[in-house]
Amino acid sequence: MKLSIIRSACSSIRIHPACPGSRVSGLTRRCLPVGPANNRLILRTASATSSGGTSPKLAVSFGKHPLQRPGYESDLFTFSHREVVQSTKEAMLALQGRNPVVQPLLVIIQAGEDDCLLEINKKMAGRIGLNITQICLAKECSEDEIVEEVLKLNEDPRVHGVYLHLPPAYITSRVLNTIKPEKDVDGISDLNMGRLVRGDLSKGFVPPIASAVLDLLEKHDSALEGKTVLLVGGEGPLGVSLQCLIERSGMVALKGNWSSKSLQRQVMQADAVVLLGAGNMDLPPTWIRPGAAVICCVPLCFCLAPFVFFNVVGSCSRWLQEQQYRPWNLTTSTWTSFSHVILFSNDIEISRAQTPKPVDQLAEEIGLLPEELEAYGRSKAKVRLSLLDRLHKQPDGKYVLVAGITPTPLGEGKSTVTIGLVQALSAHLKLNSFACLRQPSQGPTFGVKGGAAGGGYAQVIPMEEFNLHLTGDIHAITAANNLVAAAIDARMLHEATQSDKALFNRLVPSVNGVRRFSPIQISRLCRLGINKIDPASLTPQEVSTFVRLDLDPSKITWQRVVDTNDRFLRKITVGQASTEKGQIRETGFDIAVASEIMAILALADSLVDMKNRLARMVVGTSRSGQPVTAEDLGVSGALAVLMKDAIKPTLMQTLEGTPVFVHAGPFANIAHGNSSVLADKLALKLVGCDGFVVTEAGFGADIGMEKFFNIKCRASGLRPNVVVLVATVRALKMHGGGPNVSAGAPLPKEYIDENLSLVAGGCRSNLRKQIQIAQLFGVPVVVALNVFKTDTQAEIDLVCEIAKECGASNAVPCHHWSQGGRGSLELAQAVNEAASRPSHFKFLYNIEMPIVEKIRTIAQQVYGADDIELSPEAKAKIDYYNQQGYGSLPICMAKTHLSLSHMPDKKGVPTGFVLPIRDVRASIGAGFIFPLVGTMSTMPGLPTRPCFYDIDLDPVTEEITGLF
Amino acid sequence: MKLSIIRSACSSIRIHPACPGSRVSGLTRRCLPVGPANNRLILRTASATSSGGTSPKLAVSFGKHPLQRPGYESDLFTFSHREVVQSTKEAMLALQGRNPVVQPLLVIIQAGEDDCLLEINKKMAGRIGLNITQICLAKECSEDEIVEEVLKLNEDPRVHGVYLHLPPAYITSRVLNTIKPEKDVDGISDLNMGRLVRGDLSKGFVPPIASAVLDLLEKHDSALEGKTVLLVGGEGPLGVSLQCLIERSGMVALKGNWSSKSLQRQVMQADAVVLLGAGNMDLPPTWIRPGAAVICCVPLCFCLAPFVFFNVVGSCSRWLQEQQYRPWNLTTSTWTSFSHVILFSNDIEISRAQTPKPVDQLAEEIGLLPEELEAYGRSKAKVRLSLLDRLHKQPDGKYVLVAGITPTPLGEGKSTVTIGLVQALSAHLKLNSFACLRQPSQGPTFGVKGGAAGGGYAQVIPMEEFNLHLTGDIHAITAANNLVAAAIDARMLHEATQSDKALFNRLVPSVNGVRRFSPIQISRLCRLGINKIDPASLTPQEVSTFVRLDLDPSKITWQRVVDTNDRFLRKITVGQASTEKGQIRETGFDIAVASEIMAILALADSLVDMKNRLARMVVGTSRSGQPVTAEDLGVSGALAVLMKDAIKPTLMQTLEGTPVFVHAGPFANIAHGNSSVLADKLALKLVGCDGFVVTEAGFGADIGMEKFFNIKCRASGLRPNVVVLVATVRALKMHGGGPNVSAGAPLPKEYIDENLSLVAGGCRSNLRKQIQIAQLFGVPVVVALNVFKTDTQAEIDLVCEIAKECGASNAVPCHHWSQGGRGSLELAQAVNEAASRPSHFKFLYNIEMPIVEKIRTIAQQVYGADDIELSPEAKAKIDYYNQQGYGSLPICMAKTHLSLSHMPDKKGVPTGFVLPIRDVRASIGAGFIFPLVGTMSTMPGLPTRPCFYDIDLDPVTEEITGLF
Repeated sequence: MKLSIIRSACSSIRIHPACPGSRVSGLTRRCLPVGPANNRLILRTASATSSGGTSPKLAVSFGKHPLQRPGYESDLFTFSHREVVQSTKEAMLALQGRNPVVQPLLVIIQAGEDDCLLEINKKMAGRIGLNITQICLAKECSEDEIVEEVLKLNEDPRVHGVYLHLPPAYITSRVLNTIKPEKDVDGISDLNMGRLVRGDLSKGFVPPIASAVLDLLEKHDSALEGKTVLLVGGEGPLGVSLQCLIERSGMVALKGNWSSKSLQRQVMQADAVVLLGAGNMDLPPTWIRPGAAVICCVPLCFCLAPFVFFNVVGSCSRWLQEQQYRPWNLTTSTWTSFSHVILFSNDIEISRAQTPKPVDQLAEEIGLLPEELEAYGRSKAKVRLSLLDRLHKQPDGKYVLVAGITPTPLGEGKSTVTIGLVQALSAHLKLNSFACLRQPSQGPTFGVKGGAAGGGYAQVIPMEEFNLHLTGDIHAITAANNLVAAAIDARMLHEATQSDKALFNRLVPSVNGVRRFSPIQISRLCRLGINKIDPASLTPQEVSTFVRLDLDPSKITWQRVVDTNDRFLRKITVGQASTEKGQIRETGFDIAVASEIMAILALADSLVDMKNRLARMVVGTSRSGQPVTAEDLGVSGALAVLMKDAIKPTLMQTLEGTPVFVHAGPFANIAHGNSSVLADKLALKLVGCDGFVVTEAGFGADIGMEKFFNIKCRASGLRPNVVVLVATVRALKMHGGGPNVSAGAPLPKEYIDENLSLVAGGCRSNLRKQIQIAQLFGVPVVVALNVFKTDTQAEIDLVCEIAKECGASNAVPCHHWSQGGRGSLELAQAVNEAASRPSHFKFLYNIEMPIVEKIRTIAQQVYGADDIELSPEAKAKIDYYNQQGYGSLPICMAKTHLSLSHMPDKKGVPTGFVLPIRDVRASIGAGFIFPLVGTMSTMPGLPTRPCFYDIDLDPVTEEITGLF
Repeated sequence: MKLSIIRSACSSIRIHPACPGSRVSGLTRRCLPVGPANNRLILRTASATSSGGTSPKLAVSFGKHPLQRPGYESDLFTFSHREVVQSTKEAMLALQGRNPVVQPLLVIIQAGEDDCLLEINKKMAGRIGLNITQICLAKECSEDEIVEEVLKLNEDPRVHGVYLHLPPAYITSRVLNTIKPEKDVDGISDLNMGRLVRGDLSKGFVPPIASAVLDLLEKHDSALEGKTVLLVGGEGPLGVSLQCLIERSGMVALKGNWSSKSLQRQVMQADAVVLLGAGNMDLPPTWIRPGAAVICCVPLCFCLAPFVFFNVVGSCSRWLQEQQYRPWNLTTSTWTSFSHVILFSNDIEISRAQTPKPVDQLAEEIGLLPEELEAYGRSKAKVRLSLLDRLHKQPDGKYVLVAGITPTPLGEGKSTVTIGLVQALSAHLKLNSFACLRQPSQGPTFGVKGGAAGGGYAQVIPMEEFNLHLTGDIHAITAANNLVAAAIDARMLHEATQSDKALFNRLVPSVNGVRRFSPIQISRLCRLGINKIDPASLTPQEVSTFVRLDLDPSKITWQRVVDTNDRFLRKITVGQASTEKGQIRETGFDIAVASEIMAILALADSLVDMKNRLARMVVGTSRSGQPVTAEDLGVSGALAVLMKDAIKPTLMQTLEGTPVFVHAGPFANIAHGNSSVLADKLALKLVGCDGFVVTEAGFGADIGMEKFFNIKCRASGLRPNVVVLVATVRALKMHGGGPNVSAGAPLPKEYIDENLSLVAGGCRSNLRKQIQIAQLFGVPVVVALNVFKTDTQAEIDLVCEIAKECGASNAVPCHHWSQGGRGSLELAQAVNEAASRPSHFKFLYNIEMPIVEKIRTIAQQVYGADDIELSPEAKAKIDYYNQQGYGSLPICMAKTHLSLSHMPDKKGVPTGFVLPIRDVRASIGAGFIFPLVGTMSTMPGLPTRPCFYDIDLDPVTEEITGLF
């Protein structure tokens, strides 16, 4: 058992003049606050203003009462004590000026109870405003027990200093080096001792006993420069540290030895003598030069409290400093030669050629604190959301969205542009930048498309960790989603087979004779308008209303999910085992990233927000037409528990060592297809006000960007500064009238040979339109042409020229795939320049507009449709949503990404069409209405030879092959 | 661009006698190997044997050629150099004696190329057997570039020393403190400097320049004791370290100052003078006492190579020492008072009351190396399998299995007994011990049963991390299992809709005009007896055989899985969407832990083994009756990739801070219900030969223990020393004839009041039989009575008495639930005592016996059946398995755990029954045949009010409630 009480740990300092006529000068002490930037010795910053012309000469002793020393005259001074207390108090006031609630805490570990030091220092600590906690271990405590206490204090962020008030034999090397150096206010750990010797005290501490001696020397003689101080008997670390400090004060430190014959002569020549070592204080007073000082240090004297306190305040001040925003100190690995490109045949080989920095190092470089990081292996870590609180005053950086023109089915490289851009900004222009990417589904990784870590020399590494389990977020979503599904069917079964009373008895069981509603059940009662908390008080009708969700099996909208391309689960019949008593129904599985929980993860801006959204999710409709939520199922708390780690973004790095957040990856069709709000917010704080956060929106600008602005920015409150619009000569040729491009088939020759007219056609149609769409939102656009090796210089120049004509702030070619960040330098400069221009961001529609009007606005202004046409189902759903109060949610269009219209084969800028709205659905937890334009598959399939055929693991080297 | 070449980095040391007549004694150097246990100053271990009676007096200089100093006579000695080389070579030989393949490697970082030092030291390093790599950065390299190189070298296990051969301005505090202290062979980092000052050189290094000076002083005068050495001009870290070393050599170190008036007198009185500081070497020769030595240290002199080499060899030696088995240094948190038990109402509150140690600390305490750990957050980490290689020579510890008597449906507390036992062994008896537990399924955690982290004061903490995602292994299994399932259905669809030729063209596509089989496809061809590697050479018949797995839809044994209790997925119809073209079929989902992949994870003993097992898994049968494997589907490489992290066990800790491995948790019915072979193997190495690994087998001893012995021990080759058989008074009363016990219903009064005759009945029936079963395998049994608060002393005594009569080595009551390890002390002592007895382990049956005979042996000898009765299906399956060559696999019985028989309501020791074998199945990858005795559900369901109702997360404190 341990006892924690507030106590002081110190007696007083006694000062004793050796000769009559000595006097003490009226010194004022000014101790500068200690911080990383203030790289000086703490006690050397004291400015001694001597009151007289002659130096006061003192013989000084502390620890033992000077009266006990025959031959010395004695007098007792306490001014030094008071002054250090005073300067500590001032440092404390300065500290609390910066942070009024901070409370420096010193913890003293002692063996046995010791009351002799109690009263004086309790008062002293109180005067300073310092908290002291005393941990009294047993008198015969073991090394392990001391270490265990120290380890706990190391982990406790409230503790700023640990002082061991223990017999010397207890303070083993293991014990003292267990103390975290930043809490070692006694300055005795190896690391702090080394810092002191090397003269770097921005991090360590001056041992209080050394401070006390220096303090007394300064008082003794304010003109220290050139004076000779003789250290007698100080062979240990104390002697060394004192000597270093004395020399750095400009004095000459000489070493004497008790057994040396020349000791007397040395003593007589010294301006001050410091006696170290236990008990050997028998220096004859006659040896001492008149006016010289003698300082006796008795080991284990505990009159050092004010100096310890001073170090505690310094430690707290540094801790506070660390909590502030800190400029980056990023080490980057730029590739200076790309001749070896040809050595690597694929993305995973390039990825493997670069050793990622340990993620804790990356985190330290970008100003994250160790306690904000949760490592998952060596190269990825989750970042805690507490960062947002810590840096809430830090202004956001600049916010860049990477979107694209309408793509070919092969994709146009938005991810590689995003990664190349941050590599160029951070590693080459030395402008802090963060890429925020979506976590890819494992379905496509093993299916057709492959991974999503970028490619060539613009990748996130290690790409296999990016593309596989990462930190388990999608798995958590799968678990949460399927728990809801299991709860739905099980509940329907139980309702179908039990009476109201039986259901009530089971749902609200009697535990030790008492029935109680759980908090989740009380929420449901409130929603039902039953304001009762005593289960016994419910009427039979209320019981029935409460226990029966009465889900309509034909109106369950919740699907199960797997993160696998399993086409046979698109439509299934469940409940066919006899144990399910004939309650069969048709349903299906979606790919995990299509789960509403994924959309929620991407849009939530705190744990509270996520939990509320999870509770609000509507899973189906009751037979009486009421929406049934996850909270009605009693499962919302468990969902929050399953998702508690998933809400923290995952930190990784690019090939060039710049930071990346990977977080959330909602389906870009029935959901908004953008990475998480939280990752963007954390990154915007971390990059600092001149830094950049580059985030990517799925598909063409008409889909991903529109949803980014109208849904994600609305949820986050963030405002973008620049849009980067990615184009390829290939896609532009297609829009200019080139033949069909399809995955797997060889490219027609129009795409391989120079064809300026097709390029010009594409620029003047789709590219122009997509630029205009971005301009609808008032944001400057930079066009990034992702250059392929078949592109000719004339084609590249033409694209850039027309893009600028069409209103782009700038248009530049990018060579990141083959050259990494260096290949995106021009883009980085263009983005930096565009970000300095004013952005006049505005939403496309007012959220309070009727649902139909919001849909029409998007169809006409973004897609270029003449109008929209609603099916009867769509109309009915809109009426139902309006009636349920969901009318003022934003719109998330589910439309093909292969055309601005709903017809995938209409390239360029289709006109003269009416957009058909087949159905309208709602994700109430995520917070949007999604109109279906055509049929959207939410479960991809596997081809005859899926990617997995080529994916393999060498079980000896553990190297993976075949991922891309 | 950097250049790495082998070069040396040093010239020679020159020694110069000041006075005529000086001579050099024939010193022999003996340098002890440096290791953590050898806590001395490296160079102080030199033993100087002087050849003559008078000390040789030398003036010594190095760095500048002594001839350049007017007034000094000069002579050139190189013996010191040669001797250090010689002693380094000896240390090297000693090192390679312990490990013949080790190659110490020094890396020198320099700015610009510098050839002046090349030749001599290349030869010297070669003579010693040391490797040197030189990294030549640009002459004007930046701090970042140096830091980047250093960080890479820090991470590289082949590098034992890093030396910065850089201009002083380049060696900033950041640069030198970036070097890992264990590679800082120059001894210049803050931490190493502090170690030197504090006198603890078991970890740091003596700076080579200080070593050189000490070496010269020793040569100068072998009787060092009491001699006076004057250090002139050494204010920096070098001066401090020299001074410390000189003082610890028994000499008196005095400090002189170039500007001091008394310098001449000091010099004249010194036995040796060491001149430090740049260029200030103008000491008049006349000042020097005849016979005294003068050692001039010129900064940036590079004649220190032998001393650097010596440190590199020392570093390598320490590294090698670290690779050896290291005794534990475990800090434990024993609970000294349990009065606060009443303050905690449930398991999660107790769990939360104890702060877990950081997992890296735990790992360090039990002798894991940092590079063997992959942290997942702060309190859990995966442990790399390379540990098995590192400690392959270390003898295993003792191996204890915790099994139980036939349980009531409430469970009898095997997990808490396991955890209580290791807490008692490690934290109280100070015997190293490891608990190896199964990872629980999330299904029961959110369903009925709750979590599986133990309970009360015998828990794994943090229990919420144990019970939720852990490190994602079950999620990985789910992903892998379902990828196989998706591959099966997709393949059947493609085969049904494509010609042989189309299938072949897609499966073996032409890439740049070349068709190639993948390695997985070549394996399949081999199995098919087609020994061709050129795709063009296959005959049409061979093409057809190759491309068509021709799976019989009615004979697909592979099910999908989710880790959720989703009863509606027990039997489903898939493929009902129109895109699947009518290929519907009935199938079902199992709970994830029932996947064969989980059984494989538990039985694999390396990555290679796991990969082979995954490839062998049989997923169904072709229409021609051939088994179809995962490798036939082309998916086995991808499965290995998905499972590459899951194969590493997860390290956690008990409430008392002792280590736990959590790894694998195969279903105890259709699989073997034991945790992983690999976790047991790693733990057996880590505990050391006197330590204990306690692992747990699911269900009663008739099931879990029998499978542990016959399946798991057969796969692992491990042999158990002791079986702990867990009993409760409750279960014994049931077997003695007490009324039914069922979950959810209140316990009948027989179970609450003392009833000695029911207890005695249970002991003499089920307990006796289960003891006998363990004895069939030749292993000593200790009965652990898990005491409940309703048990009376008379009942407890009776159980222990009868258990011993029945053949148990010992029988003791356990109070771990309420008292933690302290409550299991008696058990720990009994286990320790039993483990010292000989164990005569033998298998129950020979693996080559016919399948039917193996089943009969288990039924008769373990269950006590008269005989077995095979259904026609079972017979047919056995014939099929024999024909396929699966006849010599072990048997994994799928039988109820609630009775020794197949009838759950027959308690005690049923007799006179014939065991019906309804069906027989096979897990070929896992490697066992599983006969089904009755119907086994592989998918639990959710009750009306599942556990999830009470599980919640406080979104502000992030505290979880309701998990148990």
